[in-house]
Amino acid sequence: MGRWEPNTRERLARAALELFGERGYEQTTVAEIARRAGLTERTYFRHYADKREVLFGGAEALREAFTRAVAEAPASAAPIDVMAAGLVAIAAVFPERGTARQRHSVVGSHPELLERELIKRATLAAAVTEALRARGVPDHAAALAAEAGMAVFKVGYERWIAPAEQRELPDLLRESLSELKAVTAGG
Amino acid sequence: MGRWEPNTRERLARAALELFGERGYEQTTVAEIARRAGLTERTYFRHYADKREVLFGGAEALREAFTRAVAEAPASAAPIDVMAAGLVAIAAVFPERGTARQRHSVVGSHPELLERELIKRATLAAAVTEALRARGVPDHAAALAAEAGMAVFKVGYERWIAPAEQRELPDLLRESLSELKAVTAGG
Repeated sequence: MGRWEPNTRERLARAALELFGERGYEQTTVAEIARRAGLTERTYFRHYADKREVLFGGAEALREAFTRAVAEAPASAAPIDVMAAGLVAIAAVFPERGTARQRHSVVGSHPELLERELIKRATLAAAVTEALRARGVPDHAAALAAEAGMAVFKVGYERWIAPAEQRELPDLLRESLSELKAVTAGG
Repeated sequence: MGRWEPNTRERLARAALELFGERGYEQTTVAEIARRAGLTERTYFRHYADKREVLFGGAEALREAFTRAVAEAPASAAPIDVMAAGLVAIAAVFPERGTARQRHSVVGSHPELLERELIKRATLAAAVTEALRARGVPDHAAALAAEAGMAVFKVGYERWIAPAEQRELPDLLRESLSELKAVTAGG
């Protein structure tokens, strides 16, 4: 304990998911998470503000990956193609499917976790809207493209973690985007 | 106090908005809201579970209006046209713009209120997805159409309550839907 270790955040996150799975989210304390990871409670709080936050450690990386892809897309790309590039970029920073499934199951069964998840998603949508505006996309088109991107992400992601699903996240995101195009063109 | 009065819920909601505007959300108690409405605290809790909930009294009506419009749309209507009908239906159950602006300002400045707002919106999206499935729309198309409808709603609604905006909500929702179609077709 206390010695330097790489990936402290990831170790804490993994320990937390294990314990939430074994004992339930409510029944697990921060001290237990730290102990399972071979770290101290103080170290935990250097990395995460509270017990909830350990489940949302990836949100920052997600936002960075998405907004960087938006900023770096070719100047000529239409907003929806910029979204497609952003979705592919975030697929690359996702944990493996088993971990994502565990996490989803914990978050989905606790309203306070679901609330934080929705806040993170809204924050991501706002950051993507901003990144689109910075490319010169008009305000409403930027907001709609970002929200459409979030919709595609949500549906593709939920499909990816569904039981028995075998296909990979980038494929499912691309497929969801095609389906959204088909749905919106259908009127 | 205590005598029968029509629109008890609406009176409490109006009193709450007034007080939140005058004193701030944190500084207002349920007892004060009830008093301002000329009612008792007990009556308040017969209508709303807590202080937050008084700001979300319209969520149920919104869901009913949206899902009813989805269920009643012509069998031949494409999912996106069904969404359009749902959006027009919810525009009809909205409060007047001044009230919506006051409410938005309170909700936007308190994370706990924003969290509840996002939960209500996710619940609405799930109900609309379900209503589309009940029409025979396949799962993913239903989820994407519902989420696209939410995106259109969010952008159109925020436009409606923006300072100096003069146009009416149904027009702005229709315009947002056209913009979403343009955005998703643009790739």
